[in-house]
Amino acid sequence: MAYQKPTGTQDFLPGVVEKWQFVEEKARDLCRRFNYREIRTPLFEQTELFERGVGETTDIVEKEMYSFKDKGDRSMTLRPEGTAGVVRSYVENKLYGEPDVSKLYYIGPMFRYERPQAGRYRQFHQFGVEAFGAVDPAIDAEVVSLGYQFCKELGLQGVKVEINSVGNPASRAAYREKLLEFLTPMKDSLCKDCQSRMERNPMRVLDCKVDQDKFTGAPSILDSLDEECTTHFEQVKQYLTDMDVDFVVNHRLVRGLDYYTHTAFEYKAQGIGAIDTIGGGGRYNGLVSEIGGPDQPGIGLGLGLERILLILDKQEIDLNAVKPLDVYFVALGEAADREITKQLYLVRKEGLSAERDYLGRKMKAQMKSADRFHAKVTAILGDDELERGEIALKLMTTGEQQTVKLSELSLKLREFAEKA
Amino acid sequence: MAYQKPTGTQDFLPGVVEKWQFVEEKARDLCRRFNYREIRTPLFEQTELFERGVGETTDIVEKEMYSFKDKGDRSMTLRPEGTAGVVRSYVENKLYGEPDVSKLYYIGPMFRYERPQAGRYRQFHQFGVEAFGAVDPAIDAEVVSLGYQFCKELGLQGVKVEINSVGNPASRAAYREKLLEFLTPMKDSLCKDCQSRMERNPMRVLDCKVDQDKFTGAPSILDSLDEECTTHFEQVKQYLTDMDVDFVVNHRLVRGLDYYTHTAFEYKAQGIGAIDTIGGGGRYNGLVSEIGGPDQPGIGLGLGLERILLILDKQEIDLNAVKPLDVYFVALGEAADREITKQLYLVRKEGLSAERDYLGRKMKAQMKSADRFHAKVTAILGDDELERGEIALKLMTTGEQQTVKLSELSLKLREFAEKA
Repeated sequence: MAYQKPTGTQDFLPGVVEKWQFVEEKARDLCRRFNYREIRTPLFEQTELFERGVGETTDIVEKEMYSFKDKGDRSMTLRPEGTAGVVRSYVENKLYGEPDVSKLYYIGPMFRYERPQAGRYRQFHQFGVEAFGAVDPAIDAEVVSLGYQFCKELGLQGVKVEINSVGNPASRAAYREKLLEFLTPMKDSLCKDCQSRMERNPMRVLDCKVDQDKFTGAPSILDSLDEECTTHFEQVKQYLTDMDVDFVVNHRLVRGLDYYTHTAFEYKAQGIGAIDTIGGGGRYNGLVSEIGGPDQPGIGLGLGLERILLILDKQEIDLNAVKPLDVYFVALGEAADREITKQLYLVRKEGLSAERDYLGRKMKAQMKSADRFHAKVTAILGDDELERGEIALKLMTTGEQQTVKLSELSLKLREFAEKA
Repeated sequence: MAYQKPTGTQDFLPGVVEKWQFVEEKARDLCRRFNYREIRTPLFEQTELFERGVGETTDIVEKEMYSFKDKGDRSMTLRPEGTAGVVRSYVENKLYGEPDVSKLYYIGPMFRYERPQAGRYRQFHQFGVEAFGAVDPAIDAEVVSLGYQFCKELGLQGVKVEINSVGNPASRAAYREKLLEFLTPMKDSLCKDCQSRMERNPMRVLDCKVDQDKFTGAPSILDSLDEECTTHFEQVKQYLTDMDVDFVVNHRLVRGLDYYTHTAFEYKAQGIGAIDTIGGGGRYNGLVSEIGGPDQPGIGLGLGLERILLILDKQEIDLNAVKPLDVYFVALGEAADREITKQLYLVRKEGLSAERDYLGRKMKAQMKSADRFHAKVTAILGDDELERGEIALKLMTTGEQQTVKLSELSLKLREFAEKA
């Protein structure tokens, strides 16, 4: 019998995987420039960590977690997002004791049990950053601009940032009251989800897709911000302007959980026919203490890589990620076969990419193979050349040919490869 | 309450994670040169795939798998090794229909439920390659030499390859009989595991650590090889000699499962006081058809990255993986603060790594921060300089100072950074 990949997962094969490598290298390079350092946490954690760190009233925790009992009968969960594990690690490893702001990034797989549908995967991949220990609005702006810069440098068209402030707990309590005053008279006309959210999490009601139209006149949280919150938000916006970030304020962009504070943001890009959200983030000054750490502020972002690659494809942006081969060796005869295997070893050791035939194919088929690998050079060795200690090179782009000494092969190949 | 990482897992933090990045980049660069392309398969698969592909009589499948029921009540398993998923993907995606040999590599996490002990992790990491479609001994030698080259280029000392041939099924059937003739008279003196293996898998008896000493006079599989197998093995050894691989033949190196054929090998390196196995592999001409594909040959290797990093540490090999920061900005005053945040954005956009203070610290503390990041340059901006549109640069290695125009900052920083 033949086996299939699990529902909702993907194989990334050569030809596609190079795009992933390109996007990840971009993320790593950007983090180097922004002085964020990688952190790698386990792919599963105790289930309670996510219940606490992601929030028990969220869809993720209520419906989508990949939880299982391990052989010690402990409930473990494949991580559904990146922040909770990083915060756990920040606390457990006492990174808050270091003198500088902890600026961390992660890239990797996340897992949610989603119903199978286009663009939703049970194993998907995120790039995210977290910065702990600073309340300076400059770091809010840095985080927002990092994600924006990432999208721009990948070539994504029409990227916009929506930004808001959800204030501090006091501002939010004031807003919550005003919002309930607005929502209560229409309660019976709202969907069931909204009605349930009104009690647990009124700010999340504004996210509802069903009842969206009814909220046009809803109060703005920005009118409930106190002076400290307003000043913080103004400074973030000023920095973002200085950094050429294309942003708009969206006062509806709220996050319901108590540990979110101040800056909240989302990245949007133009797909085909629809504006897609490709990621977002926010400040979470209450989260580190929520999961057992000291009272340290934090801010982070997460970007969905499947979504970004999909939009790059839709926008027909070619990442040019597949690299050509430097040299393809063709051997004519048994002695030549042994010699090119040795030469293959030598030129690879020198840093060049090189290939040969392993299927006993005729020369013509081997030349086709060289074409499929976009070889810059083919190196052809027959018994005659071998006797003279030479090899024939052909520059594939121009057809230029040259016979060189085997002892000078790497040097000549490098010259040829640079010309191509 | 505070949370802890799950037993048997690790957090890789800044300072250590750079070594992982270095080792992975080495693997990727080597695969580029050897023309292997990455494949990424899901981190979990149907449990039956591993039962079939790894083997039901192996310790992995019998004792160590992380299996769980998903919400559709299907038994899934976090991958305990890399080959089964790659073979599944090769078959499912019909890669065998492509004209060239499929040369694939993977790097990533694997999961086994091990009892907690030094050097054993429940989430660990492997680099491996698989080549499908060719029986040419040149590809056996290429795979063996790729792993060897990887260890050498990382700087590992005293790396040796042990190599053997387990022949084809006919040779192995002949050997199995001779081996049982040797083992049967001593059966009662062997440990329980050996006794059980004698029935299911006699070749695996030779692996037993308890009874090792009793097998000195055991027959060698090399004496049971037919001509085809012997020729194949001789050619592999000849190529390995041509490629400067330091190898020895170990006729005890056997793999019990039926789909292993011809070349088997292991990599050894000198730890402290003990020779450690850091990986191995072999040819598996029967595996692709075993898991539902056409009759296509294959060969692969897997290397344990935790083990390799541990030995590098023991051998005190410094990978020099942490990179210095290009520039640390110091602002004196509020206007300067806004300006350096903008300059930070600009120089990062130009490709330089740059940092500032986010904690409102005094200049002295900021200079210490610059030191901790091994900054090549500090750029200091006060109100006076700002008024003149200038900024003061200090080259940290030499103490050299220079005041430059803000408009020329990136250019000058690049010059300075290259000098450092």
